[in-house]
Amino acid sequence: MLSVSIPPPQCLKKPLAVPHRHMFGPGPSNVPPRILEAAAKPVIGHMHPEIFEIMDDIKSGIQYMFQTRNIMTFAVSGTGHTAMECAIFNAVEAGESVLTAVNGIWGERAAEIAERIGGRVNTIVSPPGGFFTNAEIEQALLKYRPVVFFLAHGESSTGVLHPLEGIGELCHKYDCLFLLDCVASLGGAPLCMDEQGIDILYSGSQKVLNAPPGTAPISFSERACQKIFNRKTKPVSFFLDLKWLANYWGCDDKPSRIYHHTGPVNAFYSLRESLAVFAEEGLENSWKRHKKVAEYFHTGLESMGLKLFVKEKKARLATVTTIVAPHGYNWKEITNYIMKTYNLEISGGLGPSVGLVLRVGLMGCNSSETSVDMVLAALKDALKHCHKSKV
Amino acid sequence: MLSVSIPPPQCLKKPLAVPHRHMFGPGPSNVPPRILEAAAKPVIGHMHPEIFEIMDDIKSGIQYMFQTRNIMTFAVSGTGHTAMECAIFNAVEAGESVLTAVNGIWGERAAEIAERIGGRVNTIVSPPGGFFTNAEIEQALLKYRPVVFFLAHGESSTGVLHPLEGIGELCHKYDCLFLLDCVASLGGAPLCMDEQGIDILYSGSQKVLNAPPGTAPISFSERACQKIFNRKTKPVSFFLDLKWLANYWGCDDKPSRIYHHTGPVNAFYSLRESLAVFAEEGLENSWKRHKKVAEYFHTGLESMGLKLFVKEKKARLATVTTIVAPHGYNWKEITNYIMKTYNLEISGGLGPSVGLVLRVGLMGCNSSETSVDMVLAALKDALKHCHKSKV
Repeated sequence: MLSVSIPPPQCLKKPLAVPHRHMFGPGPSNVPPRILEAAAKPVIGHMHPEIFEIMDDIKSGIQYMFQTRNIMTFAVSGTGHTAMECAIFNAVEAGESVLTAVNGIWGERAAEIAERIGGRVNTIVSPPGGFFTNAEIEQALLKYRPVVFFLAHGESSTGVLHPLEGIGELCHKYDCLFLLDCVASLGGAPLCMDEQGIDILYSGSQKVLNAPPGTAPISFSERACQKIFNRKTKPVSFFLDLKWLANYWGCDDKPSRIYHHTGPVNAFYSLRESLAVFAEEGLENSWKRHKKVAEYFHTGLESMGLKLFVKEKKARLATVTTIVAPHGYNWKEITNYIMKTYNLEISGGLGPSVGLVLRVGLMGCNSSETSVDMVLAALKDALKHCHKSKV
Repeated sequence: MLSVSIPPPQCLKKPLAVPHRHMFGPGPSNVPPRILEAAAKPVIGHMHPEIFEIMDDIKSGIQYMFQTRNIMTFAVSGTGHTAMECAIFNAVEAGESVLTAVNGIWGERAAEIAERIGGRVNTIVSPPGGFFTNAEIEQALLKYRPVVFFLAHGESSTGVLHPLEGIGELCHKYDCLFLLDCVASLGGAPLCMDEQGIDILYSGSQKVLNAPPGTAPISFSERACQKIFNRKTKPVSFFLDLKWLANYWGCDDKPSRIYHHTGPVNAFYSLRESLAVFAEEGLENSWKRHKKVAEYFHTGLESMGLKLFVKEKKARLATVTTIVAPHGYNWKEITNYIMKTYNLEISGGLGPSVGLVLRVGLMGCNSSETSVDMVLAALKDALKHCHKSKV
């Protein structure tokens, strides 16, 4: 007879308490009530016809946001990192050459993931805040002959929006798949998957989409599928194997879907709702709004005497603004002060940008002049109050 | 200038509609309003102190449910399959010997996952509905000298609850880690991780816990951590690397947590709430209730002339009952009829049990005599109405 020796924990007797907060960090962003309420609808089965219809709606919504006609378009049951692994696990076989552009944390992580599965990884590296010219990229493609080239469209750790013009063509010239991370940029900067020759594109639910974290849109071009479905070895992950996911999402030509894993149905509800909200506003309107609000924000910051971390205007990410960490201050004291005083999140750097920047994310419903005014007022106040705390 | 050529999809203009349903299949089960409401609380940051407190509560709740004092106890950001991969990816290195017990779909999947990462996999196989004696297990341990032995406690595809007595000791005698899947059994059958010598144990949120699918409790013994933290190679997945997860969940001895991935914070809210509901009832009471309700159900089925698929009473899983597919019927017509007429899900077989069984899951809040009466009435009606549809 088994004996229960560990008692129920006292901490669970306290009711769950969650503060309301202005989520103006690099994500997750605030989730509007409409999307939260969608997630609270009753659970149905992961193989019921109604959930397949919801998943089909999600596919259409992602095709719209990505501007792609790829049939192989769906959402991974996980966050952006899961999508990153899904892309690399499927597109790369052990021993193959991979090139990643490292100008912040995401390139580093993509390199690490490809290395773990036995990819021969090479990188091109730029200091935080920088980006790459097409000549630099071409040189590396020529030198390393990779099967996949990884680039982050929005480097949320540094605030860089990478120019994309011509990169798809370059990759294809060298018979390489173009893998783009648009977790931080999707919906907040112009991006057309098909037109720009992107072979694998993924994002996350918790940024411009304003859904809770936990699902990640992804799409594979015909060219990517050709490579993936002709692999010699199986991908290391069963959970992220594109053959299985394609069937689960009704993206293959099989007559019926078979059980793969139990999809997070409530997270699918909220993702569908967020795509519906997005479709109502329209892609171009969202791009324009994020740009306009970012410019308003950047002007306000500069008129306060703060400096933007990304020098070139056209390379500034509208969704996540990086501000040079104000001289003579401890950045952590600033973010703590603003959180304590205004219940408002802005954050410090991440990875290579730690200590160098403050980061402010204004994404989806948070991209408005009202939010900007709130952040500017909070920053002004913080700089006054934290002034004596020299590093 | 990029041109938007794909218009917003019409399908997203329809409001999201989700039916209310009796979820009496093998999972996901119904989620009580209290738990759904928890998930709809506002999003906070994945690195805010408040979410760390919620995660700490979750750890305590899982330690209670698992009856373990393992510090390395947390929830994976994914479903049961993600936890299965987390366990195997961390515990097994390429070239190592793995033994999996296959008496249904879960053993097959564990074998497949271990093979994909280069494990030398051997299996012991029993026909669906069967299980293994300790002598059979010992013989295989002796023969294959595995580093990990995989077993499903509750084989939800066949309805078998595997006896566990002495298996932990056997594994340790042969210097092997005992990895147990309790996705379907947790909370519905006696299980004490520490007392039974289980080294890695994982479950899912969407069964007895009655939370939405999307998080998966997991725990590693000291012995398992010893092996994992002395690996020669990195696990294939960055997302599931125990070193990173341990830090993210505050299970290591580092002074602070660093960013790993963006946890699904709303799913954590609902998991915490489901653990709180569970702690209120108490582990032993839940075990007893599931047993009592299952016996009431089984008696009812037999008095209808139906046969239980699992012969031995003590090996019947209380949470998922398998009924021999009634002779002369098309099982699919029965489940469809019941869904259509009663808005009630029961399901057919899965993997090796397809065509052999009907499966009824009564888990957590669904484990009650009222639910049983509902299922029995629906089954009686279905057998009357579907009778002429001979296979």
